[in-house]
Amino acid sequence: MPLARIDLVQGKSAEYRRTIGTIVYEAMVDVLMVPKNDRFQIIAEHPADALIADENYLGIRRTQDCIFYSTDAQCWRTVEQKKAFYKVVADTLHARLGLRPEDVFINLIEVQKEKLSFGIGIANTQK
Amino acid sequence: MPLARIDLVQGKSAEYRRTIGTIVYEAMVDVLMVPKNDRFQIIAEHPADALIADENYLGIRRTQDCIFYSTDAQCWRTVEQKKAFYKVVADTLHARLGLRPEDVFINLIEVQKEKLSFGIGIANTQK
Amino acid sequence: MPLARIDLVQGKSAEYRRTIGTIVYEAMVDVLMVPKNDRFQIIAEHPADALIADENYLGIRRTQDCIFYSTDAQCWRTVEQKKAFYKVVADTLHARLGLRPEDVFINLIEVQKEKLSFGIGIANTQK
Repeated sequence: MPLARIDLVQGKSAEYRRTIGTIVYEAMVDVLMVPKNDRFQIIAEHPADALIADENYLGIRRTQDCIFYSTDAQCWRTVEQKKAFYKVVADTLHARLGLRPEDVFINLIEVQKEKLSFGIGIANTQK
Repeated sequence: MPLARIDLVQGKSAEYRRTIGTIVYEAMVDVLMVPKNDRFQIIAEHPADALIADENYLGIRRTQDCIFYSTDAQCWRTVEQKKAFYKVVADTLHARLGLRPEDVFINLIEVQKEKLSFGIGIANTQK
Repeated sequence: MPLARIDLVQGKSAEYRRTIGTIVYEAMVDVLMVPKNDRFQIIAEHPADALIADENYLGIRRTQDCIFYSTDAQCWRTVEQKKAFYKVVADTLHARLGLRPEDVFINLIEVQKEKLSFGIGIANTQK
């Protein structure tokens, strides 16, 4: 979970935005075995007309509250683990924030471990 | 076309920004055979000094109106199809918005299909 | 170095932001042999609470001044070159801007060369 981007419509509370970040981070740790405290997130707000999520692609009814979660992540686990991750994130966002599961868009991209520096100018050598 | 980011200088009209998104989406469907309605885009405006596009790299004269189109895309077709896509996007942006072809920067990144969730907490299993 | 994103907290000077971009670009050219003038960067400012960098992950003490540098880059060199790049960037940011090396987060992602268009609707065929 080197760096995650969370994009959503502007106007939500700071607490709402922060909680999205916390929920995604906790799901990473609990479901995908990402190391504890590996939390690096950029949470960006956008005007409503700057976020375009098709209202019915694949039969899923999306609204203006759709959030986009993107991360370039190392060491991905099995497809089953990824499926479990999607479900936990959507379920928890719904339970804690009332966010519709239809409004949760997740985009994961695999990267190699040598290509990160978490700071002090050195490459990451952890798993 | 799981998620596309379009970055451009601030101060253009909402219609101008929206049309860029439409043109890119239509080229995806027409040239790259992306499924109809697979449209997920974030269109971000930036101050002029926050967007840096070299004014002459590769002999292409860019201006402050340069737009950046980035997408993490699944199931990419042949190099020829990608070339056709670049050309259609640049030509159509020029014809419909007067955008200089020199000012169209496109960045495509390949991802695997299992790594997306379009909503409701389930993995995408479509092509 | 097709497109780089630099994200940092708002409130720094335009000169400060621009210099970060220059330092990263120069390190790319000097250490990773990226072609001269291949500079395409988006430098985005965010409110303090929108940037989350764990304060102690891997024992590195980060502050609110943490910057995130992300790029989808083609033709990456050896791990040693990447390590040299991380070090030069962190050292130079410290020397020229006083930025703490602990506050430099770097995220590199490899892409293929056919998947870029630097403008005029044609694919990049350079190395």
